[in-house]
Amino acid sequence: MRIDIISVLPELLESPLNHSIMKRAQQKQLLEVVLHPLRDYGLGKNKQVDDYQYGGGAGMVMMIEPILNCINQLKSERDYDAVIYMTPDGKTLNQKIANQLSLLQNVIILCGHYKGIDERIREHIITMEISIGDYVLSGGELAAAVVVDTVGRLIPGVLNDETSALFDSFQDDLLAPPVYTRPEIYNGWKVPEVLLSGHDKNIDDWRYEQSLLRTKERRPDLLKD
Amino acid sequence: MRIDIISVLPELLESPLNHSIMKRAQQKQLLEVVLHPLRDYGLGKNKQVDDYQYGGGAGMVMMIEPILNCINQLKSERDYDAVIYMTPDGKTLNQKIANQLSLLQNVIILCGHYKGIDERIREHIITMEISIGDYVLSGGELAAAVVVDTVGRLIPGVLNDETSALFDSFQDDLLAPPVYTRPEIYNGWKVPEVLLSGHDKNIDDWRYEQSLLRTKERRPDLLKD
Repeated sequence: MRIDIISVLPELLESPLNHSIMKRAQQKQLLEVVLHPLRDYGLGKNKQVDDYQYGGGAGMVMMIEPILNCINQLKSERDYDAVIYMTPDGKTLNQKIANQLSLLQNVIILCGHYKGIDERIREHIITMEISIGDYVLSGGELAAAVVVDTVGRLIPGVLNDETSALFDSFQDDLLAPPVYTRPEIYNGWKVPEVLLSGHDKNIDDWRYEQSLLRTKERRPDLLKD
Repeated sequence: MRIDIISVLPELLESPLNHSIMKRAQQKQLLEVVLHPLRDYGLGKNKQVDDYQYGGGAGMVMMIEPILNCINQLKSERDYDAVIYMTPDGKTLNQKIANQLSLLQNVIILCGHYKGIDERIREHIITMEISIGDYVLSGGELAAAVVVDTVGRLIPGVLNDETSALFDSFQDDLLAPPVYTRPEIYNGWKVPEVLLSGHDKNIDDWRYEQSLLRTKERRPDLLKD
């Protein structure tokens, strides 16, 4: 999978993309993430990428032309399955959407900044708008990093077997059960007996019950679908 | 506000914390973010921080003792208003929670990794569990960065007046209206007439209508509360 990220602040993405699982995915050539500084496509001597908004009001708006020039350049090089814009009013990311995205080959992610992008880009160019949650970030960069991480780790081969994504929260609409490690007693706090029993069936049953219980308590909405 | 982040992978957070608004907030001394590598508190020669889970199964679990040693060290230096654990089964972050967090003085954020942390830390030490959305990340670091960004920009003085957070999506339970900038016509795509009218009242009315319309279409759930 190839992900092209267009941003006015690509530096912000450097460390998230170059550590841990994202680094490994790129080294294994299962994932290619390419950053495109929007300013390279800026207009005039000052490489302008934003301007005041029509109708007045605070905040700058990202202009059509630099974005379009960058996207058209990319589209001339390969076919894209999706041109995604990260925005708080987009469709809220969840594990189902992440699974779908992980099946795509080439994707462009456009990060908003300032007041947002000119609406005409959204109407005519963007094919999918994604939000990572009901809160406002300084820009779309962290949101793009979240998409790359969530989607990237689902690509077959990226995770080792032992950390397989199949057992994560949400994959089966249940939250994960509690986990414990050594020591058996710390500060008087004990590990549940069943986990020490060595009885696989009982352990499996307990974990499933705990998953169900935790989901009912914390996220009953997940059980309704 | 001071935020202490405990992580096995603090390097991942370097670039998000040192650019744009988060950098400015720290330079203005309105926000202090301190990274604590958990491995500094690891056990034995190998600085061990994780171990196999009781009951068997794939994935390592972060041990109690290194986490507790780090948190106790911090607590001996100052009082904390919250010890937050980033986890997909936590309370889902939204703008209201971000507003509440922005009023706190000292906060610890613990980032999970691998299979998660020993449940006993969650039961006895953690005071608040936060998720940034219904999807699974490689670790809690990006989630912590999202919290720092979302909360940090709400601290008075962090944003300039002209980018005031009051007009963002979600602050009034409405999505933001569309925005446009020059040129007036591009590729045959036109800016809505009203925004060129210079008639402030009509422009305000149009923006409010668009906000309402967009919220009804995309997020009717926001209007129900």
